[in-house]
Amino acid sequence: MKTSRLEAFSDGVIAIIITIMVLEMKIPHGTTLAELKPLTGTFLSYVLSFIYVGIYWNNHHHLFHVTKRVTGGILWANLHLLFWLSLFPFVTGWMGENHFTALPVALYGFVLLMASIAYWVLQSTISRDTKAGELLRSALGKDFKGKLSPLLYLCAIGFAFLQPWVSAFLYVATALMWLIPDRRYERALEVEASD
Amino acid sequence: MKTSRLEAFSDGVIAIIITIMVLEMKIPHGTTLAELKPLTGTFLSYVLSFIYVGIYWNNHHHLFHVTKRVTGGILWANLHLLFWLSLFPFVTGWMGENHFTALPVALYGFVLLMASIAYWVLQSTISRDTKAGELLRSALGKDFKGKLSPLLYLCAIGFAFLQPWVSAFLYVATALMWLIPDRRYERALEVEASD
Amino acid sequence: MKTSRLEAFSDGVIAIIITIMVLEMKIPHGTTLAELKPLTGTFLSYVLSFIYVGIYWNNHHHLFHVTKRVTGGILWANLHLLFWLSLFPFVTGWMGENHFTALPVALYGFVLLMASIAYWVLQSTISRDTKAGELLRSALGKDFKGKLSPLLYLCAIGFAFLQPWVSAFLYVATALMWLIPDRRYERALEVEASD
Amino acid sequence: MKTSRLEAFSDGVIAIIITIMVLEMKIPHGTTLAELKPLTGTFLSYVLSFIYVGIYWNNHHHLFHVTKRVTGGILWANLHLLFWLSLFPFVTGWMGENHFTALPVALYGFVLLMASIAYWVLQSTISRDTKAGELLRSALGKDFKGKLSPLLYLCAIGFAFLQPWVSAFLYVATALMWLIPDRRYERALEVEASD
Repeated sequence: MKTSRLEAFSDGVIAIIITIMVLEMKIPHGTTLAELKPLTGTFLSYVLSFIYVGIYWNNHHHLFHVTKRVTGGILWANLHLLFWLSLFPFVTGWMGENHFTALPVALYGFVLLMASIAYWVLQSTISRDTKAGELLRSALGKDFKGKLSPLLYLCAIGFAFLQPWVSAFLYVATALMWLIPDRRYERALEVEASD
Repeated sequence: MKTSRLEAFSDGVIAIIITIMVLEMKIPHGTTLAELKPLTGTFLSYVLSFIYVGIYWNNHHHLFHVTKRVTGGILWANLHLLFWLSLFPFVTGWMGENHFTALPVALYGFVLLMASIAYWVLQSTISRDTKAGELLRSALGKDFKGKLSPLLYLCAIGFAFLQPWVSAFLYVATALMWLIPDRRYERALEVEASD
Repeated sequence: MKTSRLEAFSDGVIAIIITIMVLEMKIPHGTTLAELKPLTGTFLSYVLSFIYVGIYWNNHHHLFHVTKRVTGGILWANLHLLFWLSLFPFVTGWMGENHFTALPVALYGFVLLMASIAYWVLQSTISRDTKAGELLRSALGKDFKGKLSPLLYLCAIGFAFLQPWVSAFLYVATALMWLIPDRRYERALEVEASD
Repeated sequence: MKTSRLEAFSDGVIAIIITIMVLEMKIPHGTTLAELKPLTGTFLSYVLSFIYVGIYWNNHHHLFHVTKRVTGGILWANLHLLFWLSLFPFVTGWMGENHFTALPVALYGFVLLMASIAYWVLQSTISRDTKAGELLRSALGKDFKGKLSPLLYLCAIGFAFLQPWVSAFLYVATALMWLIPDRRYERALEVEASD
């Protein structure tokens, strides 16, 4: 089976997730700056989650660029990833509304952790089930970022109960790490093309 | 007519259904574990419905993989299926918020029942209206799961008024039954290809 | 320009409209049948609107099936149609919540009327701007349904202030009229193919 | 990499933005004209934002029509644009609910300003990163509208604190300016084709 419908469905789900998060920013009733202020936390956590969902979409885009065929296992590994991403609006809203207090910050990290594990499972399933496996493995290389991120999320979950702002900093730092252009897939495809 | 636009539209509707269900998990105002606890029911019913909608998307994906042409009848049979799926967020939220009490559990089963009937109607319409009929029929075989599921939902509706947890168990069991990899379509396509 | 992106965007908007209408059915807090009863109006108006949006999607699907090229005028005529369709969730919820009283019923008819005019404008723009004009005109023929519907909506708006149930009957009757299979496009395409 | 998935994802996000804005029009509880009246502001700001999002979709459609390849930079420039567009429902609702008072009107202008800058960044990234650069530059010409719009938004932000209705007028005027058919891309493509 081709990947087009799986990509279209994932695009749809991710597009909705990234957009409904903004609905957690409730419109204030007054019109003064003072009334906008309590929304700062919600806005900052929205920006952070927007970037994270953007990173996932980006990586998903690259991942399926080297995948040619879809198996039943890939379909479910993909749905599993979408499940954890679908919890972003909830944890984003909860963390933002409570201005980065302990438990919401830890739960945010937990969802990030589970999403990163789900992404890793999806990658492994594709690498095992399809002929794209070799290309994918050469593209990923040591997959340094993919291995470091869950560790950083684990640290952040721990720090949430001591200094939640350290956790917030770790979330931002991990996001920035992923924002650095990643040319692994392009390089692997070029290598393949030049063979 | 080709199936691509019908698939894109269905993907869109199913993607929205699977994502807005999470909106029923209202963000709690406090930040303690005690305040997360009342959400357990909503979360569990969300997970269950996510899996069900995922199963429907999966089956829809397989079904239209062997369908080449769309008729007016197929368009409406497909919209009929989407209608019942669109009621998932409502019944999921109601069942979850009330911690699996009788009537919400029965209504959840009723929507599952109607969706399974709508899926069966869609299958039959495709099998009758298109040349894919033969391929589809050979792929479905005796369609054991398709015939057993409505019966299980009917049982669950009955049990809802006696022991709602039995119904919940039946919903989970039926979902698991569908999660077992189903290679009917792959096999039928391989048989066709080898002819 | 090709029609694919316009179709994908319209599919997305229509898929969201048809799905968020269900959010107007607020989950009741109790679990008795008595608490579901006030939702009857909302449910019935949801079913009606689901069918109407389904009809529009169906007709849109057929219309762009004979359209090969998109112009700036078509883009905006299409957005104009989507605008009126986007008001469906609002008028559906208002009419349903108030159990089909005068003003909500009239406003519902007004949005139906404007949508049917917008559809007619879109049809005319395509027929004028593209080479598909001739094929489209032969497919539409006298466009009996397209001309009768706005008149029926006008009648229904009038009746809303006398006997709103007559209006509701007219809305249902008009929807049923459109549900009758419409083979104009198929026939026109067959005629063209056989030439 | 091809542009198709980026276009599909953007279509999804824009379709959701344009549709969920209507959710800010809360259904009134009564059924009299008097109860609809407070919604006038919300409705007018909805119409304005619908047109703006429509313009952005239109321009996006044209822009990617001359873009053949997607780079990492383009992916993120596109997400940056979508981020600012995703704030439309919030500022539209706030401005509408408060009947065009100072701060909401200014914030609306700020989001318009940032979206226009984000669009300009996207354009520049495409023009720099891809071979379509030359075609795009010749299509844009002096990009008069693209340069004038941010200035008009800046003026409108200033006026918001003096005479918000002047700002509203500027928003409407800028939108109308973009509605005037823009044949730059068509012309550039024709020139290219005739070479």
